[in-house]
Amino acid sequence: MEAKSEDMSDGTGEKQYFSDIVPIRWAGDRVEMLDQTLLPSEEKWVQAVSSAEVVHAISCLLVRGAPLIGVTAAYGMALAGLEYACPDEAPASALSSHVHQAGEELVKARPTAVNLAWAVERQLGLLERAVVQGKTAREARRLLIEGAGMLHSREQAACRSLGAIGADFLPEQGNVLTHCNAGALATGGYGTALGVVRAGREAGKNLHVWVDETRPVWQGARLTAWELTRAGIPNTLIVDGAAAYLMAQGKVDVCVVGADRIAMNGDVANKIGTYGVALAAAAHGLSFLVAAPVSTLDPACGNGGEIEIEERSSAEVTSPFGASHAVALPEQTVLNLAFDVTPAALVTAIVTEVGVARPPYGRSLPLLLR
Amino acid sequence: MEAKSEDMSDGTGEKQYFSDIVPIRWAGDRVEMLDQTLLPSEEKWVQAVSSAEVVHAISCLLVRGAPLIGVTAAYGMALAGLEYACPDEAPASALSSHVHQAGEELVKARPTAVNLAWAVERQLGLLERAVVQGKTAREARRLLIEGAGMLHSREQAACRSLGAIGADFLPEQGNVLTHCNAGALATGGYGTALGVVRAGREAGKNLHVWVDETRPVWQGARLTAWELTRAGIPNTLIVDGAAAYLMAQGKVDVCVVGADRIAMNGDVANKIGTYGVALAAAAHGLSFLVAAPVSTLDPACGNGGEIEIEERSSAEVTSPFGASHAVALPEQTVLNLAFDVTPAALVTAIVTEVGVARPPYGRSLPLLLR
Repeated sequence: MEAKSEDMSDGTGEKQYFSDIVPIRWAGDRVEMLDQTLLPSEEKWVQAVSSAEVVHAISCLLVRGAPLIGVTAAYGMALAGLEYACPDEAPASALSSHVHQAGEELVKARPTAVNLAWAVERQLGLLERAVVQGKTAREARRLLIEGAGMLHSREQAACRSLGAIGADFLPEQGNVLTHCNAGALATGGYGTALGVVRAGREAGKNLHVWVDETRPVWQGARLTAWELTRAGIPNTLIVDGAAAYLMAQGKVDVCVVGADRIAMNGDVANKIGTYGVALAAAAHGLSFLVAAPVSTLDPACGNGGEIEIEERSSAEVTSPFGASHAVALPEQTVLNLAFDVTPAALVTAIVTEVGVARPPYGRSLPLLLR
Repeated sequence: MEAKSEDMSDGTGEKQYFSDIVPIRWAGDRVEMLDQTLLPSEEKWVQAVSSAEVVHAISCLLVRGAPLIGVTAAYGMALAGLEYACPDEAPASALSSHVHQAGEELVKARPTAVNLAWAVERQLGLLERAVVQGKTAREARRLLIEGAGMLHSREQAACRSLGAIGADFLPEQGNVLTHCNAGALATGGYGTALGVVRAGREAGKNLHVWVDETRPVWQGARLTAWELTRAGIPNTLIVDGAAAYLMAQGKVDVCVVGADRIAMNGDVANKIGTYGVALAAAAHGLSFLVAAPVSTLDPACGNGGEIEIEERSSAEVTSPFGASHAVALPEQTVLNLAFDVTPAALVTAIVTEVGVARPPYGRSLPLLLR
């Protein structure tokens, strides 16, 4: 992967682009991604010119967040089409084997976010249609690039739409608590949970956000706090363990989080620690909102027990990001589950771009997929 | 403060001493403390020869844990007696003003742990008795040194006793979850919450401990995991946000924590994040035990709302221990509360060296102080 640093506060067109915090962009024959492992200390864009590089970017968390993983995978599929060496005039079917293979690698990059498989499936569907219609490899390649761009636009629009819908759940004035990063950096732009907050702010609400730092990878500290501050939204960083106590003190009015996968019964897989926030919210009678595009719904998943929970390396816990030395001995046994499942019973509402689902989710969620 | 490194795995007498993990010791005219800010990477003993150095050691977390803070303060009071320049044959009253002043500085070092004020009060009581009895400064100095040693022994014995009592609450085989470090390193030795685990293990129980890493200062990762491993007790490190999900999966049988101050209605101040663990335990029908010596009970405190919660520097959150660079921008707003209060209603039992208090605590706790 090639890297280039950019001053995003300069007066060029880039600034305009970045002021929306769109963390990924297509550059004709490559995809450019904001390296989220370096934020907030450094804002560096990295280029991927092959689907394998996209797989790596997803698995090492250079890009993360379920909707953004989906968008990135779609661009990865476009690169798979480009990188396969066959003449432009060959039939589209010449690409099939390689693009399918790339799709499998992309899906394996991370197991929990359903948007990844969803985006790959959509791209494969485009390719298959091109094959059936007797199109050329050139045409198929263009379709894959356009497909990725459309999926990106669709996810951006979804955030705007669900943000506007979700903002109604926020008080005119008050404190929102969020966990992990479900912001512009987790999506094609604007954000899901933070999209709701942005929309609330745009509607004139006076909001302050408590930002769970979100161990082990600090998406809250590094990404959410950074992007809220950029957006001019007051926010305060706390350790994850402080959330419940702030609720007890009456300092939280509503909780809003994103999702990595939503089962059809309303169980929600999201960043580890989300379940504890939901339990605390319930204990204090607070609304617990999940904001996600419908691409995060998994029609094939009946309940949260079926969701594969990614287990990541112990080093994320013992050698914290940026630490000069480990906080535990090298031989320390660690369990590093990246996600947990919040049961539907704790979820007040699921806000999507096509509407709000409320309990019972077994009835309301399928309606959103029609 | 003078520092000296020691190889604690060598075959000297120190090894025997340290295999019990007694994190503090008196060396005739100075106190030696294991520097807990450097664990587990480095095991370094630091000497304090003045009460001011003890104040610094407490406030910078070189020593921490409510019972150990008390023991350390008692030694600090002994140093106050020694450091004041008056002839040995002067009346004990000559020391009074300086020792009282030192006591005030010690009490201010950290506000939440009641053991600090308790230990200072006890030492002042000894000095006052010496004054009343017309003793010399030499005799008063000896009394302060002996008083600190006795307080240290008393707290060690308390841990052994409460450990044996608390072990009955543990299953013959199962998983204990703990938050922060309430082990030998938090006490004069043996530990409170971890004393219960040690005693269970000594009684032949087959236990595994889930160790909350305990942000922001990582007492779980750095201290609890280290000392459990030394004691041969199987343990697994997790991020704080994972505790609730492990409970949902049936992987936790009981929660045991220490305390920094216990109000007379049973409300418990302990490390930030404890309240969230207690809420999750209640939601899963698990016992939530608090293990503490009676010196942690505050007879003057009616309920948790009266407990001062220490707010520490934002750097503990944004520039994690040992980090080469910050996880948030320097201007980031942070709220770093060091403790929270778990309401009595969530506490299954409070285990002390003189017995177990159960709800209603307003009735049971006063009986322990008789």
